[in-house]
Amino acid sequence: MAAGVLLLLGLSGLLCLSPSQAGKLLVMPTDGSHWIGMKPVVEELGRRGHEVVVVIPEVGMAVGSSKNTKTITYPVPYTKAEMEEGFTASVHEILNHNVVTDLEKVWNFINILDLLNDVAVRNLESMLFNKELVQKLEDWKFDALLTDPFEPMGVIMGEYLSIPSVYMQVNLPCGVDSIASQCPSPPSYVPQRYTFYTEVMSFWERSVNLVRITLQPLACRRLYTRADEIASRFLQREASVVEIMSRAAIWLMRLDFAFEFSRPLMPNMITIGGMSAVKPKPLAQDLEEFVNGSGDHGFVVFTLGSMVSELPEAKAREFFEAFRQIPQRVLWRYTGVVPKDAPKNVKLMKWLPQNDLLAHPKAKAFITHGGTHGLYEGLCNGVPMVMIPLFGDQGDNVQRMVVRGVAESLNIFDITSEKLLGALRKVINDKSYKEKMMKLSAIHKDRPVEPLDLAVFWTEFVMRHKGAQHLRPAAHDLNWVQYHSLDVIGFLFLVLVTFICVMLKTCQFCFRRCCRSSNKKKKE
Amino acid sequence: MAAGVLLLLGLSGLLCLSPSQAGKLLVMPTDGSHWIGMKPVVEELGRRGHEVVVVIPEVGMAVGSSKNTKTITYPVPYTKAEMEEGFTASVHEILNHNVVTDLEKVWNFINILDLLNDVAVRNLESMLFNKELVQKLEDWKFDALLTDPFEPMGVIMGEYLSIPSVYMQVNLPCGVDSIASQCPSPPSYVPQRYTFYTEVMSFWERSVNLVRITLQPLACRRLYTRADEIASRFLQREASVVEIMSRAAIWLMRLDFAFEFSRPLMPNMITIGGMSAVKPKPLAQDLEEFVNGSGDHGFVVFTLGSMVSELPEAKAREFFEAFRQIPQRVLWRYTGVVPKDAPKNVKLMKWLPQNDLLAHPKAKAFITHGGTHGLYEGLCNGVPMVMIPLFGDQGDNVQRMVVRGVAESLNIFDITSEKLLGALRKVINDKSYKEKMMKLSAIHKDRPVEPLDLAVFWTEFVMRHKGAQHLRPAAHDLNWVQYHSLDVIGFLFLVLVTFICVMLKTCQFCFRRCCRSSNKKKKE
Repeated sequence: MAAGVLLLLGLSGLLCLSPSQAGKLLVMPTDGSHWIGMKPVVEELGRRGHEVVVVIPEVGMAVGSSKNTKTITYPVPYTKAEMEEGFTASVHEILNHNVVTDLEKVWNFINILDLLNDVAVRNLESMLFNKELVQKLEDWKFDALLTDPFEPMGVIMGEYLSIPSVYMQVNLPCGVDSIASQCPSPPSYVPQRYTFYTEVMSFWERSVNLVRITLQPLACRRLYTRADEIASRFLQREASVVEIMSRAAIWLMRLDFAFEFSRPLMPNMITIGGMSAVKPKPLAQDLEEFVNGSGDHGFVVFTLGSMVSELPEAKAREFFEAFRQIPQRVLWRYTGVVPKDAPKNVKLMKWLPQNDLLAHPKAKAFITHGGTHGLYEGLCNGVPMVMIPLFGDQGDNVQRMVVRGVAESLNIFDITSEKLLGALRKVINDKSYKEKMMKLSAIHKDRPVEPLDLAVFWTEFVMRHKGAQHLRPAAHDLNWVQYHSLDVIGFLFLVLVTFICVMLKTCQFCFRRCCRSSNKKKKE
Repeated sequence: MAAGVLLLLGLSGLLCLSPSQAGKLLVMPTDGSHWIGMKPVVEELGRRGHEVVVVIPEVGMAVGSSKNTKTITYPVPYTKAEMEEGFTASVHEILNHNVVTDLEKVWNFINILDLLNDVAVRNLESMLFNKELVQKLEDWKFDALLTDPFEPMGVIMGEYLSIPSVYMQVNLPCGVDSIASQCPSPPSYVPQRYTFYTEVMSFWERSVNLVRITLQPLACRRLYTRADEIASRFLQREASVVEIMSRAAIWLMRLDFAFEFSRPLMPNMITIGGMSAVKPKPLAQDLEEFVNGSGDHGFVVFTLGSMVSELPEAKAREFFEAFRQIPQRVLWRYTGVVPKDAPKNVKLMKWLPQNDLLAHPKAKAFITHGGTHGLYEGLCNGVPMVMIPLFGDQGDNVQRMVVRGVAESLNIFDITSEKLLGALRKVINDKSYKEKMMKLSAIHKDRPVEPLDLAVFWTEFVMRHKGAQHLRPAAHDLNWVQYHSLDVIGFLFLVLVTFICVMLKTCQFCFRRCCRSSNKKKKE
């Protein structure tokens, strides 16, 4: 049977709303790849006739205007150059230092998170205390809010405006999605993000995982200290971001179980992983000619994401050396220093039509840092990967692909041309990688509704019904002790102990009486 | 905004398969209302071009042939009359005895379950040890199995044939669905079936709920003792039904969160509640005339399910008396004794077109026993209910509707015309019942894919991909102690205690040294 026989017609192609059905949606995205993930949903909602208002900072990396929407910007106390400089410095540090142990990687991640958090907090203050803007949003009378809670300004604004919120997210730090949604994450088989564990953990890994889960509320408190303070000031009551997040109507989770390990979800969590992998377009003529140039050997696509297009010269040389020794051609998004004797089978570009290239039948391998967008594009198009994680959730993403036998992973800190060559030859020549990837790809693409349509549907659902109260579990009304039934366990334990004591005492009493009467008899 | 704007075109209307895409599906249903729930899926799969083979006992209550399928029957050692007699006796006992306390209700339920279990075990032996039939099924080389695990013969046959299984179920006894699927059911807010609790529980209720959850594995062992023995004999190895069930590829859960309390689900659990509520047909002319006869007062629909169409005379009289005093007309599925002075606003029928009647704009109330089919039909059509639970999960179903403010519940054991009248007037005249029901109905009907299409999609998915291995959590490979991290907690506790001991000893040592040196100094 052919796969995907039952795929539905995308909603996107089907309907537009009449004015009476259209609503007003406030959108507060997060910059960078997060915005790339959210943009198609926002544009589709606008296309369907809703009044979609996107609020973004004046200065951003990827965030900007979008089709079919109104964009409102607010001033921020930093320039684009300053922001980019911060990120470049962080990336530079990662690429030039030997961050090898897992602990170093986590520490490294915390540093980047702090940097992002700095930007988030500055945005937060600039937006929330911009009276004119806030008044404007209040007057708009929105039906709902769509936000990426990675930056909590949308979270707080939704609470202030008392409108139901849809959160679109991927791998929030400190596991705040599980905490706020009350979604069980059994530490025995649900590896925490940034542990780089798989679903099958050793005793030691399970121990670390449990400690990590236990410490997460503390990590969240640290992460959101400044946001909590700002939220309290803005809402004029004691407030915390995590508490506000617990009132989210819908969580649009950018994950798919062809990639993510199976684990419990709450009914208000909707999986929309793989939205970015859209229908490919044909390649430009020069690209088409280049990729066809190596005949049956095919070609390799290589990018390290939107943030990293340069490499330290020595490291870059290792890549060039490896590429020189393969029969495939290579398309590499690279703007760094090029050695004089760069091999001719390598084409360097400032920007790659990544999805279109991966969809080409001659794409043999994909060298990637393991960001979710690229990962789903590779998965969708069935291209085996060589993965070189840099920071954030990339290390975890890589584990998930490696354990499924569709990728090899390398460490950027000690990469050599030999290692790269070995990994590339393995994923290209060992047919099992391609076969497993094709099976995984078929599973990933075989779904009753396209992720974009699901995201649109549930956002509109929240607009239509003023929330999704019926999906909210009663767990939110319990405290920690009650949720874990610790009071009940204590009570039952007490009952058991009392019962045993009474039984023992009774036995003792009976035994003594028996002894006494038998003693009496003896004496008599 | 109008509700349901985004409802998709049903798959059913869209596609049929080409012969190369069609597969072979074995279906093993359970009798009674269970079969009514499964039949549309089976027929749709047949219509789409698959070879669907339904295996049923020669003798059944509701189970029988279906469109677009092959039906195979096997002989059983009982007659239809014997089977019906058993059930009639049970129902008679319920209706004629005062089963009032919750404990009595549970006991009553266990008795009915034992009766059903007797039938199941007899079917099981008749089918599994029918060599000719088993050989025939083996030769068929099915791609997958669709079964209702309420009767475990499909479960065991799927294991024997080594084909992936799709389970379609509603409220399995002893919570075997949660146990076998490793789905977390926090006892603090997920009320166990047959407790008749809601999601908000008192301390006492939480205690009972926890004890119930703890005892469930034992209850399952009791329920499946004979099936386990037969399975071991048939498979020629030590086998248990619960263990086999843990390998289910997909669980099609006949629930919807407009009705069920929000709680965690596993990714291989697909909710398909409300499948029975199909598009209504216009009423026959005489019925249409009858229901229009009371003008704006409208009419009441009254059935106690497919198994109960009679009532003890005294009880029936209470109903007739109540109906005499309302301005509505009443349509009642009733075949019992009719008093001479039966009120004229009551029409008694052997069978009611329940869904078509509930969809009529003049339907004002629905008197029902709270079976899932009727319940979803009432919910879909937005008709407030007076609910009179009889047995099984009906008591729990009723609680779910009452707590949402869309129904009143009555006890069949002490029902009087006054009580019935009070409840009927309440749900008809107090507008809040209708308003809440309309909101709940809108939420229930507003979904991205119709439940029937979802059931068809996931069954075909399992046929296409030979299972759904990617949705299977690693929890299945852990034992109870590991799953609950008890070994890790013990280890961490030991580390903590050791750490504290070492710290104390060190302090003690230092303190002593200090004391000794100061004593020495003093002495000196």
